[in-house]
Amino acid sequence: MKKILIMAGDGIGPEIVAEAIKVLDVAKARFGLEIETDEALVGGAAYDASGDPLPEESLAKARAADAILFGSIGGPKWDNIERDKRPERGLLRLRSSLGLFANLRPAILFPQLADASSLKPEVVSGLDILIVRELTGGIYFGQPRGIREESGERVGFNTDVYSESEIRRIARVAFELAMARGKRLCSVDKANVLEVTELWKEIVTDMASEYPQVELSHMYVDNAAMQLVRAPKQFDVLVTGNLFGDILSDEAAMLTGSIGMLPSASLDEQRKGLYEPCHGSAPDIAGQGIANPLATILSLAMLLRYSLDRGDIATAIEQAVEKVLEDGLRTADIYTDGCRKVGTAEMGDAVAAAL
Amino acid sequence: MKKILIMAGDGIGPEIVAEAIKVLDVAKARFGLEIETDEALVGGAAYDASGDPLPEESLAKARAADAILFGSIGGPKWDNIERDKRPERGLLRLRSSLGLFANLRPAILFPQLADASSLKPEVVSGLDILIVRELTGGIYFGQPRGIREESGERVGFNTDVYSESEIRRIARVAFELAMARGKRLCSVDKANVLEVTELWKEIVTDMASEYPQVELSHMYVDNAAMQLVRAPKQFDVLVTGNLFGDILSDEAAMLTGSIGMLPSASLDEQRKGLYEPCHGSAPDIAGQGIANPLATILSLAMLLRYSLDRGDIATAIEQAVEKVLEDGLRTADIYTDGCRKVGTAEMGDAVAAAL
Ligand SMILES: CC(C)[C@H](C(=O)O)[C@@H](O)C(=O)O
Ligand SMILES: CC(C)[C@H](C(=O)O)[C@@H](O)C(=O)O
Repeated sequence: MKKILIMAGDGIGPEIVAEAIKVLDVAKARFGLEIETDEALVGGAAYDASGDPLPEESLAKARAADAILFGSIGGPKWDNIERDKRPERGLLRLRSSLGLFANLRPAILFPQLADASSLKPEVVSGLDILIVRELTGGIYFGQPRGIREESGERVGFNTDVYSESEIRRIARVAFELAMARGKRLCSVDKANVLEVTELWKEIVTDMASEYPQVELSHMYVDNAAMQLVRAPKQFDVLVTGNLFGDILSDEAAMLTGSIGMLPSASLDEQRKGLYEPCHGSAPDIAGQGIANPLATILSLAMLLRYSLDRGDIATAIEQAVEKVLEDGLRTADIYTDGCRKVGTAEMGDAVAAAL
Repeated sequence: MKKILIMAGDGIGPEIVAEAIKVLDVAKARFGLEIETDEALVGGAAYDASGDPLPEESLAKARAADAILFGSIGGPKWDNIERDKRPERGLLRLRSSLGLFANLRPAILFPQLADASSLKPEVVSGLDILIVRELTGGIYFGQPRGIREESGERVGFNTDVYSESEIRRIARVAFELAMARGKRLCSVDKANVLEVTELWKEIVTDMASEYPQVELSHMYVDNAAMQLVRAPKQFDVLVTGNLFGDILSDEAAMLTGSIGMLPSASLDEQRKGLYEPCHGSAPDIAGQGIANPLATILSLAMLLRYSLDRGDIATAIEQAVEKVLEDGLRTADIYTDGCRKVGTAEMGDAVAAAL
């Protein structure tokens, strides 16, 4: 009996997660899947209830689960509270406490949504790239950090830091994923300026001999940001550190024009994982029943594939999503003329029915 | 008598700078401009000649000049030399030694080249944004930095650091530039994670009261990387730190599809400046006489505008560039069917003639 923890979070989180649960229920029935679910508070919702964006109880439940389905967190309501209590800090602490070091962010263009991209169709049609971002190290967690007084003024500082073993661990995940895909891996750094990424580049280069079938390349982060705009299909798998990964994965996601469609996985060494949509909590449309639940439903598919080893069910869910897109159903964020505009629940129902 | 120092550098640097000098000579004659030029080695060329990418003599000449016209540096030839001697280090030391803290990078779409963009025409037509990047601080120069031994393995580390006064100085440049343009300024940070940018955001916010006419907004860097792809025309002026500025300015430049057209300026407090094209040294085409000299010619225009207070000549040069584009002349990088393909020298001659 596998355990999935549901952390719906803030904003549109609860609405979109509810639709993924519908789909999970159908999957349980159809595939005889034995799964126990539980719920826990996180982010602003947890702060409101207990004064902590990641209460002890939530963390304990997360540790006990085999996988976590996560909605979204944050919103203007919590913008001005004490730094350590902000919703984002709950998510960062969760990633770090569970050792979820490998963040997988696919940027895939659904053929049915090709028009949504701001790029020319020939530049993005068939786009399918995977960004592997290191998620528990680098400047996000490096010490020392803070704001200190110096010569009569304040000075803010953070430390970007990676050890050989941290680099090797994430690079291995990326090489393995490249082996299972197009066998091309591009490592992104700023080795011409930053020593921390000079070490990164060296370690990744060393490891290439273990994966002779993978074609490894290196690119500076500024060039990678350009190449993603110029010719994104040149990439298969990209691997990079926490901060560059944050920036490039969002840029890559937006190339598709439909960030409401993109899932992500954050895995530990045993492939236990947290799964969440790439988009945020969209407080402006929360509670209106118009948010797109597909990224969360596709995150559930990733969960089944990576943490529960049920690639068969994952594929069935992905096909169900393609089916409803084929049928012309669209939430507001991906709507175009000639399609049928539906709300969050109707979209979830349609995927559940298609499954 | 103003002094301009020419630093041609490596790769295509000497070829493209030669064309800008042709244009400068015509400007001197036509506008009775009194200018003395000198030359100095930098980058790989300087390393080859003296073992140092920024020899004392070059730095001394740079200090003595009113403005510097810079080509480009670097190439595979110098990829494996000792870190401190690499061509890039010469440029970084030059920026830092001269206090060139304000890097202005316009991303402008030339109407004649609208097709070159990988984005849909309606998304980029008329694009005119200015990225103001802090250039002498942040993680590029922060101490401590290096690679140390720790628990039996190596650890790479860098420090991102900004003081209140560094932030205020660059923010002031950005507010002033916004005043002279569309009066909208977007400050880019990652204040939800990094303390150094939390201070950044606070200081920029404080200064807004001095510029009541400027509409100030804030954006996280990951979102900015997305918004540049989704709807770049929402921006007027962007201001950010050294590393984010490196990434976002290259991304923004590529939105235009013709990075061979984009100039940049790096200014100190007295508006003494270094002017260089946004593109690199393109070693693969160096010496073939096919590189696009227009970014360098437009950098010369910026030099005349910002450091020599000759906006009139700058505008005349910019108009001459537009004229040759109107006439259908194109170097290989911006060539499309129906235009006339020309080499580096022919393009430079045409601009000189149009002027
Ligand atoms: C909310 C924020 C802390 C987070 C990050 O920067 O990692 C988000 O942008 C993401 O990419 O998941
Ligand atoms: C060459 C390199 C050190 C430099 C930088 O990162 O600043 C370049 O990318 C630039 O943007 O001018």
